[in-house]
Amino acid sequence: MEVLYAAMLCGGIAVLYGIFTRNSILSANAGNEKMQEIALAIQEGAQAYLNRQYRTIAFVGVVVAIILFLTIGQLSALGFVIGAVLSGVAGYIGMLISVRANVRTTEAARTSLQAGLTMAFKAGAVTGMLVAGLALLAVAGFYYLLTGPMGIAPTNRLVIDSLVSLGFGASLISIFARLGGGIFTKGADVGADLVGKVEAGIPEDDPRNPAVIADNVGDNVGDCAGMAADLFETYVVTIGATMVLSALFIKVGAAEIMQLPLIIGGSCILTSIIGTFFVKLGKSNNIMGALYKGFIVTAILSAIIMWFAMQWALGGDMNKAFTAGTTVFSGRTLYYCGLVGLVVTGIIIWLTEYYTSTEFRPVRSIAKSSETGHGTNVIQGLAISLESTALPTIVICAGIIIAFKLAGILGLGFAATAMLALAGMVVALDAYGPVTDNAGGIAEMAGLDDDVRGRTDALDAVGNTTKAVTKGYAIGSAGLAALVLFGAYTADLKEYFSDVIVDFSLSNPYVIVGLFVGAMLPYLFAAMGMTAVGRAGGAVVEEVRAQFKENPGIMAGTSKPDYARSVDLLTKAAIREMIIPSLLPIVAPVALYFIITAVAGQAAGFAALGALLVGVIVGGLFVAISMTAGGGAWDNAKKYIEDGHHGGKGSEAHKAAVTGDTVGDPYKDTAGPAINPMIKITNIVALLLLAMLAH
Amino acid sequence: MEVLYAAMLCGGIAVLYGIFTRNSILSANAGNEKMQEIALAIQEGAQAYLNRQYRTIAFVGVVVAIILFLTIGQLSALGFVIGAVLSGVAGYIGMLISVRANVRTTEAARTSLQAGLTMAFKAGAVTGMLVAGLALLAVAGFYYLLTGPMGIAPTNRLVIDSLVSLGFGASLISIFARLGGGIFTKGADVGADLVGKVEAGIPEDDPRNPAVIADNVGDNVGDCAGMAADLFETYVVTIGATMVLSALFIKVGAAEIMQLPLIIGGSCILTSIIGTFFVKLGKSNNIMGALYKGFIVTAILSAIIMWFAMQWALGGDMNKAFTAGTTVFSGRTLYYCGLVGLVVTGIIIWLTEYYTSTEFRPVRSIAKSSETGHGTNVIQGLAISLESTALPTIVICAGIIIAFKLAGILGLGFAATAMLALAGMVVALDAYGPVTDNAGGIAEMAGLDDDVRGRTDALDAVGNTTKAVTKGYAIGSAGLAALVLFGAYTADLKEYFSDVIVDFSLSNPYVIVGLFVGAMLPYLFAAMGMTAVGRAGGAVVEEVRAQFKENPGIMAGTSKPDYARSVDLLTKAAIREMIIPSLLPIVAPVALYFIITAVAGQAAGFAALGALLVGVIVGGLFVAISMTAGGGAWDNAKKYIEDGHHGGKGSEAHKAAVTGDTVGDPYKDTAGPAINPMIKITNIVALLLLAMLAH
Repeated sequence: MEVLYAAMLCGGIAVLYGIFTRNSILSANAGNEKMQEIALAIQEGAQAYLNRQYRTIAFVGVVVAIILFLTIGQLSALGFVIGAVLSGVAGYIGMLISVRANVRTTEAARTSLQAGLTMAFKAGAVTGMLVAGLALLAVAGFYYLLTGPMGIAPTNRLVIDSLVSLGFGASLISIFARLGGGIFTKGADVGADLVGKVEAGIPEDDPRNPAVIADNVGDNVGDCAGMAADLFETYVVTIGATMVLSALFIKVGAAEIMQLPLIIGGSCILTSIIGTFFVKLGKSNNIMGALYKGFIVTAILSAIIMWFAMQWALGGDMNKAFTAGTTVFSGRTLYYCGLVGLVVTGIIIWLTEYYTSTEFRPVRSIAKSSETGHGTNVIQGLAISLESTALPTIVICAGIIIAFKLAGILGLGFAATAMLALAGMVVALDAYGPVTDNAGGIAEMAGLDDDVRGRTDALDAVGNTTKAVTKGYAIGSAGLAALVLFGAYTADLKEYFSDVIVDFSLSNPYVIVGLFVGAMLPYLFAAMGMTAVGRAGGAVVEEVRAQFKENPGIMAGTSKPDYARSVDLLTKAAIREMIIPSLLPIVAPVALYFIITAVAGQAAGFAALGALLVGVIVGGLFVAISMTAGGGAWDNAKKYIEDGHHGGKGSEAHKAAVTGDTVGDPYKDTAGPAINPMIKITNIVALLLLAMLAH
Repeated sequence: MEVLYAAMLCGGIAVLYGIFTRNSILSANAGNEKMQEIALAIQEGAQAYLNRQYRTIAFVGVVVAIILFLTIGQLSALGFVIGAVLSGVAGYIGMLISVRANVRTTEAARTSLQAGLTMAFKAGAVTGMLVAGLALLAVAGFYYLLTGPMGIAPTNRLVIDSLVSLGFGASLISIFARLGGGIFTKGADVGADLVGKVEAGIPEDDPRNPAVIADNVGDNVGDCAGMAADLFETYVVTIGATMVLSALFIKVGAAEIMQLPLIIGGSCILTSIIGTFFVKLGKSNNIMGALYKGFIVTAILSAIIMWFAMQWALGGDMNKAFTAGTTVFSGRTLYYCGLVGLVVTGIIIWLTEYYTSTEFRPVRSIAKSSETGHGTNVIQGLAISLESTALPTIVICAGIIIAFKLAGILGLGFAATAMLALAGMVVALDAYGPVTDNAGGIAEMAGLDDDVRGRTDALDAVGNTTKAVTKGYAIGSAGLAALVLFGAYTADLKEYFSDVIVDFSLSNPYVIVGLFVGAMLPYLFAAMGMTAVGRAGGAVVEEVRAQFKENPGIMAGTSKPDYARSVDLLTKAAIREMIIPSLLPIVAPVALYFIITAVAGQAAGFAALGALLVGVIVGGLFVAISMTAGGGAWDNAKKYIEDGHHGGKGSEAHKAAVTGDTVGDPYKDTAGPAINPMIKITNIVALLLLAMLAH
């Protein structure tokens, strides 16, 4: 139990860190009246949207909770509710800080780059620590509740099903938040860009653009709240699945191993907090370098502390042998698997930077191809987006092989767990982005000096890379965890349906059908997401055109546009559009199982369903990486041109790059990142389906 | 043997049909001097390119033939050479007809739409029948040579390996031809469009554009010769794989079943020839309707004749039971599988038309989204391209399930065989496209009346749909055949390496690694293809700009541009760019096998290699369908706007649609279609690797 207490304590420390840092942010100067007025409009819009979004999700959530209550039991329903509520809370509080830190970052940037960086990163760190802390508290606390006060054995089915339901709650919130937020933010962004930059010829974030507040609201509800919910669920599902797998596979000593993911998560929260203090500009004023410093300190300390934490949790003996199926492993080999996860994280971050930073060939090739027009910009961007999948795939495959050779399928679980243990730091780097993006918008709208905007732009540019990093990291961990979730599925099958012999061989046609249908889901899902953004963006264009027409004073600068109308329009559009695609990964596995079972019997149905789980990650990994890296590359290619290359701002190349950036928007911020929770939901629904069928 | 004779006779009839029709085309009026001069330039350019392309491929081919000779044996080397040479011949002759029919189609279009349609379709039919006829002659003739004069037993390893090598020869030519031709044609198209329409503001096919002849050459070497080589290989590999599988799986009566794919192919050639006579405009002047009439007649007659041909080949008894592994089937159930293949073909054609025709929602949604700019056009086009994969996948899955339930894995082979049996007709519909495209170009360059161009444009518009149809059809058949090729691989494994127990279950991590690496290949391959087109297009832009600068008389219309220089530039670029990507599917499976074997032993190596075969189709199916359907939709959205919708030609929406069309070009004509031969090569290389390791 001490291990559990320690893990929960670490989670509590993260939350405390969040509260202290929040207070330190709020005590900073919030700028002049005009800035505060703008910030208030963004705050109100973001809060209004999230309130409405969570109300809609709550409706779906209550239905699902009742279904779980009736089919599996009350503990599953409770787990589901805890996962859902805490996921929502993490996103909501992160957003609340973000919309207050934005204007303070603008104000801080008036004095220096370092001050702006500190303020923005602090806000990111609050979100980061809340995500990691609350996620750890959710898993550890719920597990403690079940195995401590309620006295249920750790490997009891009740515990397993409840942990799976906890993950389901987190995932369900997360897919809605990712997709709804993504549609809002990119509908606003695409619409505002099209009608502002292209039609009216006014710069980004110009206060005359009626969609400009909506655009800034979008950064907070999509890139901050949506992202936080996504990483919360990735954390909960990955650590939960590793625990579930330990319970299912280990016959002796399962409880000891089940605590390890929690203490790994807990100890790495401490190193993440330490890392935040190292985010400081050096002499070269290199912002990415400052962020990296924080990350590298965290990663190195984590590699060290993980050993001692695991050693302590295992009673000092890292060489004690455990057996899972035919695999023998020890604390030491699990630790090595954790190191594999850390190394995979590092390489994926480096590869993502290579593909999305203005320093390297990919982004520059897109910038260069912009010289010959819109078409060649998009072609080269698509080529880069396709190409960017190759090296991460090879890294993930290498990770799978090494971790598996070290400790079998549990090794994969521990590699993925160690990846996610860094979530506090990674989310901090990401959540920093929307704050700086907003800060720039506020500087522009409040008419501050150009050098303030220059500083916020510099802060924002690296935000594109850190945003892409988080997404690559989340989907990469999903790639590693794929076999873990599939392992849980097969173990569940054996336990529940020992009389059904399921053939998962590739020569079984139902496996091939499952793979095809699984790989199809990310495509269909992404198509829906892209269409939704196109539609929402089109609606914004029409709304803005209408406002310009109704009130000619807006363009003249003599009267203020009605910002709230665009926010309201997007709120309705995003909520409406997020429902159907979010239900796809819930309905598809259930439908496939019942159709194949009806046609060819239950064994075929289980085989197809299992293959669907693999298919959705095999298909989804590529769609997600290509979209998130490609979108980041397009965005930074535009920034690279704006820095004065290939003709600079206003040139033909710049116009082409704006087109590429617009295309990349729904790629990188709507469809691409939502694929990670989609994969998880598919897997969890399959596990719950087994539990329901067995009950 | 009579069955073999009959099949070869049908192949011979197709070739004879080709020769007669060619003569009838050549005897038609070739237009005025100016038209002939233009046509001659296209002819010379196309021939020069193909000569050079085949010289380069021959170099690779000789090396491969020597390797096969040394590692497997002389018959494999012979099969490889036959497959390679006939594949080249089919493409080459098709191109020779196409570059002569183009100008005659222009001339015929001066009198009437029907006359133009007849001439263009005749040219397409020559290519179609040559592809089907030569492919059938290659398989049937080679099989006859081996089992007749040389007296080898049909199920002997020598026959199996030789048939696989025959497929390898065809595939190798085909990937080079598809990719090289695709890079040439789209490099020219993208380059000419960018510099002509966008920069210089001159219309498509304007004779002042120095890249205009290259653009027309590209239609012939890419869309005609490259496509012909692709379908030739699909035909040979599908029918060959079904025969190989029969030899491997059936213990008694294999020789009887092995003849069936040949007689199905033969009899459907006859129905394809009959179908060509039904391609006639009705009262409504509906061109697509005329082409459909031909296809529907062929499909219905094929469904009937297939029964009688199979009955005859089986000595009149369609109910005689055969056994393959644990599956029992009869001629009757195989016939039903053939019907499944025909129905799948029909539905895929219908779905492709839905996604690429101007009549339906998808294309119109792209056209509408063009109103709000380049960005929304591309976003909506990408959304449609992603979406277009869903329904074909479901159809293919349904086909897999039904055929498998009817006759096991062989049933899948027969469904795919029946699909390919219609290749004569399908290729005819496709090869008609580049002829009409050229005809329009010649009409423009020769300064003919607008109504001539109007007629050729009408003919060309449906060409976009028929082109997309062929690609969907080819990749769809690959989806059905995936299990057949995997089945051949597992059967080979058992035969060669009976002591190695290979676990193809999804819970084997090496299977997951194989799936990931396999799914990665189409992405990397497509990225290379897209980049190549971008580079080639960029080079064309610079070349054209240089010509305009050197010789101001070109734009004034007082002096002629140097067309040959652009053709030469593209020839070099396309040949240079096609090599590396084409080697990817040859090197990757070999590398994966050796790496995994070194790390984890031979059983793991074989498992990963087998999974790679499945992964490449699971990944490739989606990349290929999304690219080919998406590209067709973009192209026709532009045409729809040019027909006067959303502002018509010259409007802002039209400019956005031109961008979409440019993006779609390498999607639909370079990267997308080359994925089909890439998948096949990967599979065949794996089979040959087993043979080599065993020898």
